[in-house]
Amino acid sequence: MAGGAAELSAMQVPSPSAREAASMYGTAVAVFLVILVAALQGSVPPESPLPYRIPLDPEGTLELSWNVSYAQETVYFRLLVRGLRAGVLFGMSDRGALQGADLVVLWTDGDSAYFGDAWSDQKGQIHLDAQQDYELLQAQRTPEGLTLLFRRPFSTCDPRDYLIEDGTVHLVYGILERPFPSLEAINASGLRTGLQRVQLLKPNISVPALPADTRTLEVRAPDILIPGQETTYWCHVAELPVGFSRHHIVMYEPIVTEGNEALVHHMEVFQCAATFESFPHFSGPCDSKMKPDRLNYCRHVLAAWALGAKAFYYPEEAGLAFGGSGSSRFLRLEVHYHNPLQIQGRRDSSGIRLHYTASLRRFDAGVLELGLVYTPLMAVPPREAAFVLRGYCTDKCTQLALPPSGIHIFASQLHTHLTGRKVVTVLARDGRERAIVNRDNHYSPHFQEIRMLKEIVTVLPGDLLITSCTYNTEDRTLATVGGFGILEEMCVNYVHYYPRTQLELCKSAVDPGFLQKYFHLVNSFNSEEVCTCPQASVPEQFAAVPWNSFSRDTLRALYGFAPLSVHCNKSSASRFPGEWELQPLPEITARLPEPAPRCLAGPRPGPAGPTVVRIGGGRG
Amino acid sequence: MAGGAAELSAMQVPSPSAREAASMYGTAVAVFLVILVAALQGSVPPESPLPYRIPLDPEGTLELSWNVSYAQETVYFRLLVRGLRAGVLFGMSDRGALQGADLVVLWTDGDSAYFGDAWSDQKGQIHLDAQQDYELLQAQRTPEGLTLLFRRPFSTCDPRDYLIEDGTVHLVYGILERPFPSLEAINASGLRTGLQRVQLLKPNISVPALPADTRTLEVRAPDILIPGQETTYWCHVAELPVGFSRHHIVMYEPIVTEGNEALVHHMEVFQCAATFESFPHFSGPCDSKMKPDRLNYCRHVLAAWALGAKAFYYPEEAGLAFGGSGSSRFLRLEVHYHNPLQIQGRRDSSGIRLHYTASLRRFDAGVLELGLVYTPLMAVPPREAAFVLRGYCTDKCTQLALPPSGIHIFASQLHTHLTGRKVVTVLARDGRERAIVNRDNHYSPHFQEIRMLKEIVTVLPGDLLITSCTYNTEDRTLATVGGFGILEEMCVNYVHYYPRTQLELCKSAVDPGFLQKYFHLVNSFNSEEVCTCPQASVPEQFAAVPWNSFSRDTLRALYGFAPLSVHCNKSSASRFPGEWELQPLPEITARLPEPAPRCLAGPRPGPAGPTVVRIGGGRG
Repeated sequence: MAGGAAELSAMQVPSPSAREAASMYGTAVAVFLVILVAALQGSVPPESPLPYRIPLDPEGTLELSWNVSYAQETVYFRLLVRGLRAGVLFGMSDRGALQGADLVVLWTDGDSAYFGDAWSDQKGQIHLDAQQDYELLQAQRTPEGLTLLFRRPFSTCDPRDYLIEDGTVHLVYGILERPFPSLEAINASGLRTGLQRVQLLKPNISVPALPADTRTLEVRAPDILIPGQETTYWCHVAELPVGFSRHHIVMYEPIVTEGNEALVHHMEVFQCAATFESFPHFSGPCDSKMKPDRLNYCRHVLAAWALGAKAFYYPEEAGLAFGGSGSSRFLRLEVHYHNPLQIQGRRDSSGIRLHYTASLRRFDAGVLELGLVYTPLMAVPPREAAFVLRGYCTDKCTQLALPPSGIHIFASQLHTHLTGRKVVTVLARDGRERAIVNRDNHYSPHFQEIRMLKEIVTVLPGDLLITSCTYNTEDRTLATVGGFGILEEMCVNYVHYYPRTQLELCKSAVDPGFLQKYFHLVNSFNSEEVCTCPQASVPEQFAAVPWNSFSRDTLRALYGFAPLSVHCNKSSASRFPGEWELQPLPEITARLPEPAPRCLAGPRPGPAGPTVVRIGGGRG
Repeated sequence: MAGGAAELSAMQVPSPSAREAASMYGTAVAVFLVILVAALQGSVPPESPLPYRIPLDPEGTLELSWNVSYAQETVYFRLLVRGLRAGVLFGMSDRGALQGADLVVLWTDGDSAYFGDAWSDQKGQIHLDAQQDYELLQAQRTPEGLTLLFRRPFSTCDPRDYLIEDGTVHLVYGILERPFPSLEAINASGLRTGLQRVQLLKPNISVPALPADTRTLEVRAPDILIPGQETTYWCHVAELPVGFSRHHIVMYEPIVTEGNEALVHHMEVFQCAATFESFPHFSGPCDSKMKPDRLNYCRHVLAAWALGAKAFYYPEEAGLAFGGSGSSRFLRLEVHYHNPLQIQGRRDSSGIRLHYTASLRRFDAGVLELGLVYTPLMAVPPREAAFVLRGYCTDKCTQLALPPSGIHIFASQLHTHLTGRKVVTVLARDGRERAIVNRDNHYSPHFQEIRMLKEIVTVLPGDLLITSCTYNTEDRTLATVGGFGILEEMCVNYVHYYPRTQLELCKSAVDPGFLQKYFHLVNSFNSEEVCTCPQASVPEQFAAVPWNSFSRDTLRALYGFAPLSVHCNKSSASRFPGEWELQPLPEITARLPEPAPRCLAGPRPGPAGPTVVRIGGGRG
């Protein structure tokens, strides 16, 4: 991965003189533009140095490959455009809108073709960036289509530019069907556009060697017919051989049926509960009325993959135990098909290949659930653009539950329901923030993958873990309370760690007594009566709150002050011994500095205008 | 004033090639450095085009003249350094500290002299700016000393730079007594340093013509001996002739005794109350036990001047009435002497020259007091870095009290006590902010002058005026309540306007009943008892509040929600008829956009390093 970036950096080219495009608006003639691109310099390396690949649109017309150079703080992109018409927009935006996006545009005015760094305003109008930060390295015609090789630093000095951060990036695209006299004549609103979510900054970690006795097990859909509807969750039960002994999963990887790359959105393998002797063999949509209820007991995650992810390797000293006594032989595969074009008749056998070994590694890996308890005590007022709730795994719990040498977190899966917009878990020690466990400033509930951490985070007894979720409830009229329902909210970070401990869940909620004080306070400040009668439930109470600046501000103040009810549990039903009610809210005396994006002082050497892409008359 | 800037712009010069200084560190030899400066280009214009002038240090070693070009958004500075030793620092910082300041530095390494744009960190260490935004136009030796002529845009793209805004600017200086091998070797902490507050961006308004029959009256200290202590407020009673009829003051200007320019900090002339037939003739310190109590009734401001201000002109169509029946013949002059070096034996006859006319202008000017009622109901918790209180002059009051064509505000004097840090008054109409009446983001209670507005603001019946004050109570342990005491707080904007109306005071405070609800709320959330017994006063109640995040946040929430008690008064004792209690807090649906500092895209043409100032061997 790192080697790829180094090879690419050798291909840097002086760009053709800039600005010459400014007055070159010709007539729009070529309805079906054929571009024969002269390579700017060199040729594409024989082996692709861009290990990550994702289709951008459901038809697979646009395909993006990329690699990350952490040394250069730069992402290298290769965009393959199949059946190019008159151009393409590609870029990034906060949440996937084509408005307010940071874009590269390849367009033609009918005579010449141009490549430029641009941005779209809130009306979708395209403008050239004052500073050109996407740098074109190569434009080449291949049998598959036109490929554009370009790079961009993570951060630029241009306030119009998107900051490439860890976590989810919303890639956007648009297809130009005809020439435009100028860049400014393009409006994204009129184009065929779309978005694709991806983790762009893949961690730069080395792949551990697999043991010699590694064997594989494929858990795949049995050549099913993908339903012709936008969203399908397919459930399929698989079974381990009778007598399958205890093994360690050391790696898993996706198997995606060729041609279905744009349809298979994410896949998970769950192990069923050992409490049941057996599970019915079912294969069908997870929401089918035919699905046996017992499959609801298959919830222990063994493997999870989402679009754009590659193989998942456990650290060399740990593996995920499965098989053996006390462990169910039944697995449930869940495949999410995302089929917005409602393509019919497509068959699929996608799934996950587990690589496991009988030579057990030194440590069992485990999963610990951080964040908020699933309770209506934690609620978000309606019409909030960015309301933050925090769940605490307190020092008292880690002191009790973790071994003296601590645990090592190597991966993390963030989880909220529909209004979640950001999630971050911070580790604090002695009241001071020390490390970010995982952060996603562009979190989407539609893209929940297990992510390897860039660096392993060690949690010692007495450490504090704070998980903060930011919600947007602008489209809601009533409070959104915590809970299991899809219209209720969660704030969870499943952290993958070793060595495995008894601690399965370390979460918190506000003390219920203090929340009742809040309802009384709201009552005393408002003419309308809030239902605080003893038989009212907390969701009913929240539904009765008149949402004004005072009830909003004081709810925020309450959550920032009131003591906690802490869940420090061995399993969801069994708490560690101790007093966990009315725990003081942890105080943070020193925060981590905000990561100041490195910004090149002074001008960059690149061109100040679009780059002219030379077009020949040939036809492919 | 505008002409001066235009003349200066013609003097722009190509700077000598930069960076050549970097390795030129010589030995520090010249203890008393004599600089014979070769003028970079041209000569100083015969008549000084820089109309504003202020001494920076109490000894008058450094003197700053300046002018403002609003067309170029640039300030032109001329710094006169008398008895130059090895260099000087000059610049600006948020509140006058030499740490975190934006600086120009003239320094020598013993061989060459350099001029550079620099900044100081929180430890006082000096660093060269990556971007050089102070541009040296001329360095010249004059009989008085070395003069440096340079300019700087209001705003630059350099995050290290100070943004020059309306209102108070804290100028800072430091004197270099010896050469330094490099800029980075300088630390401001070891130098003789100081600060001077000034309104740098003087409004660009034309001076109205004075009537032919204008006469003058000088109200001056009677050749007094300035006490040898840091702070003296001198009180002196003057008297108008018997039978002095009604006149209009149309202009006033400072008279500062030559040589005392650095000692006379500000001066005010007050008219005494007409309720008393006469006032004793007193001349002495205002805090003297000998001062007659009756002088406390001399509080109606006729004129106010502060360091750096020039003459104050009333708009052509208005004048300030004085003299005639119903008006006292007695005036009180108050002069603030700021004498940090405790200079002894200096005599002074400074004062204010009033220019008045018997040809009364069309309109009487008036003063209206906006902001917060002087009441402990409005309080700031201790240990707050920036707590905002807001006073409202409601639409109901302006509807009742203002004439149909409104009033025209042309000047403003902001006022708080010791913890005030920012003050702003905004005009809103139909719930939307429309204009800034006056704003000072670097307000200091030690620098309260009447300032002409850049543009007259018209207030119509039904308009709303919101005055916001930001306080810093980080050095306090108890709440700071509103009131008259110097350790209590005020939030006031005295606006000068015409035509004069009966409305003297339009202010507000929180409804007292809602504040009591707040104390109850704090009680119910805390184990400690807040004194809410009926005999407790509001200051006692505030003193009993345990200040935690909840009591702070909810006080802020209360002030942002609770209804108002409005004072809409003809004089401090007489209200306009109407219901003024439990008035709804005005809602603002659209705010004025934050003024986005204009920032040049791309690099500026200036040098990237310090400018070398050529030194000859001559001696003055």
